[in-house]
Amino acid sequence: MQLLDGKATSAQLKAEIAEKVAEIKAANGKVPHLAAVIVGDDGGSHTYVNNKVRTCEQLGFESTLITLPEECTEEELLQKVDELNKNDDIDGFIVQVPLPAHIDEDKVTEAINPDKDVDGFHPQNLGRMMLGLPTYISATPNGILELLKRNGITTSGKHCVVVGRSNIVGTPMSILMSRNAEPGNCTVTMVHSRTQNMQEICASADILIVAIGKPEFIKADMVKEGAVVIDVGTTRVPDASKPKGFALKGDVDFEDVKDKCSFITPVPGGVGPMTIASLMQNTLLAVERKANR
Amino acid sequence: MQLLDGKATSAQLKAEIAEKVAEIKAANGKVPHLAAVIVGDDGGSHTYVNNKVRTCEQLGFESTLITLPEECTEEELLQKVDELNKNDDIDGFIVQVPLPAHIDEDKVTEAINPDKDVDGFHPQNLGRMMLGLPTYISATPNGILELLKRNGITTSGKHCVVVGRSNIVGTPMSILMSRNAEPGNCTVTMVHSRTQNMQEICASADILIVAIGKPEFIKADMVKEGAVVIDVGTTRVPDASKPKGFALKGDVDFEDVKDKCSFITPVPGGVGPMTIASLMQNTLLAVERKANR
Repeated sequence: MQLLDGKATSAQLKAEIAEKVAEIKAANGKVPHLAAVIVGDDGGSHTYVNNKVRTCEQLGFESTLITLPEECTEEELLQKVDELNKNDDIDGFIVQVPLPAHIDEDKVTEAINPDKDVDGFHPQNLGRMMLGLPTYISATPNGILELLKRNGITTSGKHCVVVGRSNIVGTPMSILMSRNAEPGNCTVTMVHSRTQNMQEICASADILIVAIGKPEFIKADMVKEGAVVIDVGTTRVPDASKPKGFALKGDVDFEDVKDKCSFITPVPGGVGPMTIASLMQNTLLAVERKANR
Repeated sequence: MQLLDGKATSAQLKAEIAEKVAEIKAANGKVPHLAAVIVGDDGGSHTYVNNKVRTCEQLGFESTLITLPEECTEEELLQKVDELNKNDDIDGFIVQVPLPAHIDEDKVTEAINPDKDVDGFHPQNLGRMMLGLPTYISATPNGILELLKRNGITTSGKHCVVVGRSNIVGTPMSILMSRNAEPGNCTVTMVHSRTQNMQEICASADILIVAIGKPEFIKADMVKEGAVVIDVGTTRVPDASKPKGFALKGDVDFEDVKDKCSFITPVPGGVGPMTIASLMQNTLLAVERKANR
């Protein structure tokens, strides 16, 4: 069994991005500029966004953090999105989710200029992904593709089973793994809560990608000998022995299945670290596309 | 074995649409208006578009046919699209494909206002479909969903195998059959040219949807006893015994597999007749949405 080390792979990817940023800066004095909008006081969201801002600094990006109060109206947020769309100095931006309940997330996402939608959540970018057109692939699916590619895992003709049909991970992942590309060209089976013979189908996967948010759901009898296992889950499970009072658990029972896998992502340290690197990769792409328009 | 009679089902659907059109007309004097743009002299395209115009007349829609010469520039076509976007009297419109080689089809599709894109080919509408948001589902996938629904075929928890990953049929079909809806909630396996054990996977399908354009590719050993078989293929195969010199063949060897199926679509007369009815359904939807905006 070999660990798919997301920390090491994302460090490699970030180093490459930093190098490109330095080249762009040397060539024309401009550095890529990512903006992030955060509404309200959700602690988790602030942690995520702060990590994104810190990564910008590490890689030589310019970053702008826009904090709006919890009571900000939908109209005010849409106004801010419009400003960012029009601000030529901003290459890409994100609006951190979840938003307060009085704001329609879909409406905000659709208001973002698809050219600046480095989160890849705009329907137009999802549709472009389906059609194989230039797009931004959202952070988690893109991070999984990079993990596979950079660890020499070939996918063509393999049976990939995707567990969970979320908009953010499962559904786009199923499309990406079946498209005519590398990584890709898999026979893909999408399973979910209505699937009747989950164990049998999972056990037939050469590549098993799990994104359901159910701690340690995947046991050894659901994994084929020699399978590649990608665990997207990260659930906080109470654990008094840990300093923070909880442990992070994936959707895969790591100890139970690890000896059957050829490759497996740990949790934490697998898919997670790839996501911020993916966001930076998309922002760099936004700069390159703007230069070519 | 029961035939999934696309002619009868589409007649039923069209009668319902005609009734709604009459109601709208009675209520406010306006009838739904579909425009179609055709570029060049492709015989097949003219036949398709003429069928669409004739169906408009049958159902009480207003229709406008815009014919542009083969040598029309991309700029001229985009100009026409812009006019149709802005023309408030037009509820929906289509640009018939294929377009001449000097015109970028993707660019034209993306220029259509998604609200008027009753073909459902705009990336934004594909993305909205992925997200389960209001959209236009393109004619063939929508027609298949209607065929299943109107013939009382339940899909939840079934294993659906989709053969072929085209942008027009296979890929959207795989998403629609796995989404949390009825029809939907299937475990979906997407197979294609790189799939290694095609026979075995097809033979495990409760619902088999085939869209590859290879005449009579699916034989009895690829079909499970009691399966529902949806055949999207229509290939012209030379046949001197036919008045036109060819026969229309589906992707399924009908005679070989029919006795194993619970339901099967014939070719012709299965999926085909559903597609124009779907286009009319989308145009009616465009009218209803405009009224609610």
